[in-house]
Amino acid sequence: MELIDGNKIASDIAAELKAEVATFTGRRPCIALVRVGDDAASISYVKKKENMAAEIGMTSRLVLPPVSITQDELCALVDGLNADAGVDGILVQSPLPKPIDEVAVFRRIAAHKDVDGFHPLNLGKLAQEDPTGFVACTPAGIMELLRRTGVSLAGKHVVVLGRSLIVGKPAALLAVQRNQWANATVTICHSQTPDLASFTRQADVLIAAIGKAEFVTADMVKPGAVIIDVGVSRVPDATKKTGTRLTGDVHFPTVSKICSKITPMPGGVGPMTVAMLMKNTVKAYRQNNHV
Amino acid sequence: MELIDGNKIASDIAAELKAEVATFTGRRPCIALVRVGDDAASISYVKKKENMAAEIGMTSRLVLPPVSITQDELCALVDGLNADAGVDGILVQSPLPKPIDEVAVFRRIAAHKDVDGFHPLNLGKLAQEDPTGFVACTPAGIMELLRRTGVSLAGKHVVVLGRSLIVGKPAALLAVQRNQWANATVTICHSQTPDLASFTRQADVLIAAIGKAEFVTADMVKPGAVIIDVGVSRVPDATKKTGTRLTGDVHFPTVSKICSKITPMPGGVGPMTVAMLMKNTVKAYRQNNHV
Repeated sequence: MELIDGNKIASDIAAELKAEVATFTGRRPCIALVRVGDDAASISYVKKKENMAAEIGMTSRLVLPPVSITQDELCALVDGLNADAGVDGILVQSPLPKPIDEVAVFRRIAAHKDVDGFHPLNLGKLAQEDPTGFVACTPAGIMELLRRTGVSLAGKHVVVLGRSLIVGKPAALLAVQRNQWANATVTICHSQTPDLASFTRQADVLIAAIGKAEFVTADMVKPGAVIIDVGVSRVPDATKKTGTRLTGDVHFPTVSKICSKITPMPGGVGPMTVAMLMKNTVKAYRQNNHV
Repeated sequence: MELIDGNKIASDIAAELKAEVATFTGRRPCIALVRVGDDAASISYVKKKENMAAEIGMTSRLVLPPVSITQDELCALVDGLNADAGVDGILVQSPLPKPIDEVAVFRRIAAHKDVDGFHPLNLGKLAQEDPTGFVACTPAGIMELLRRTGVSLAGKHVVVLGRSLIVGKPAALLAVQRNQWANATVTICHSQTPDLASFTRQADVLIAAIGKAEFVTADMVKPGAVIIDVGVSRVPDATKKTGTRLTGDVHFPTVSKICSKITPMPGGVGPMTVAMLMKNTVKAYRQNNHV
């Protein structure tokens, strides 16, 4: 069994981006990071993005509106960043405070600066295999993990567990694309699928994104399968000082014994997300400035 | 075995649209039908659309540029229709003459008038389950055929044979949506899938859109399955005066003996396409005029 090392692959991508950015004449690519309020997890996520941008030699612009900002004010703020020629990509950190319609704010981001890949135009371009779009960071990261560990999906059966807009569906659309690393047969199953295990057991590559801690057990996996664990859950653990630990959608201790490759949690898909955000921002810089 | 009568269902939809349009005050919904050149099949398709619009009480505007029209001129023509407040939906009949980049012309149509549902924004809205988008007419028609023959996809395994942008992918995305008629587990397989029959035999509902005449034979079908045949091919037939006949992707004589329901060809999916185009145009009229 081989561990798929997301930290290593993400840092390879960062190094490649750093070398690429170093060749740019003129200003550096710039990502605007919008964080509303002082949610502890959001502060930490945005800090990671800021740090990786700096490591790569990109600029980041931290925008910190107060938690009291209204929907209209936040939309106006996004409009300003959309119009700002010095900003290549815009990231609005989720979650936004309750009264704000998060989806409406995400959709306000101009498609050509939507480096999170949440805009319907970008999802449509993914479905149409139009390379000018931005692919959501988690599914894009999954494809990089597979490619860079030598797993071509061609002729394989990929089973995606979960049909979310930002992971399950785009991952399925990527896997079925007509290109040498994709070309898979794809099944999307989800919480409403009867006898889920009968599907997951068929998977040559299983992408678990159902959001249930340690849901995928060894009896649900075909021996030799490649396992991508997208889940992040906190579960009780009396052996830890905090009384809890993080875990994925896969029961790692048993599944790792029978699969051929698996992403650990943490250190699998997670680190890829930030790397792909930066990759999308460099792409936006190139496209928006015709570099 | 029950035949799914596309002609009957399409004419039910036309009657419903006629009743709906009769309630509108002010101008009628209007579809612009753009046909370049004098391709015989295109003339016949556009005529069908014109006739159904008239039957429903809608207006159609026939636009007939010469076969010599350039790409730029055709784009300018589309721009004019996009800007024309009297036009609700725009249909550019495929195929366009060779030198013209058909995809570029289709994408030129404003998303809010794209009643064919080919614009990436509309495909993205479908993937995001945003009801303001326009769903491509063939997959939308398939869902209507199923709904109106009482086939809910919830808990079913839908296998889509073919991954085209205008049938296979949108049909898969529709079947997996979170609504009472969808909620299926969906597999997309295609020409590059090894052992295709092992997938098609799992289908509770099989949507055949692979573009190969009579490709699906009885041994590829689970007894009792529902079969939707999207294919249209012309094959040699010495018993016909013309020496040919039209057929679908399904070998009807054998498959119809073991399935529970099946669409005939012709008279199945085909007639639905025009009906759904009109339904989309009425929706565009409502949305663009806030009716």
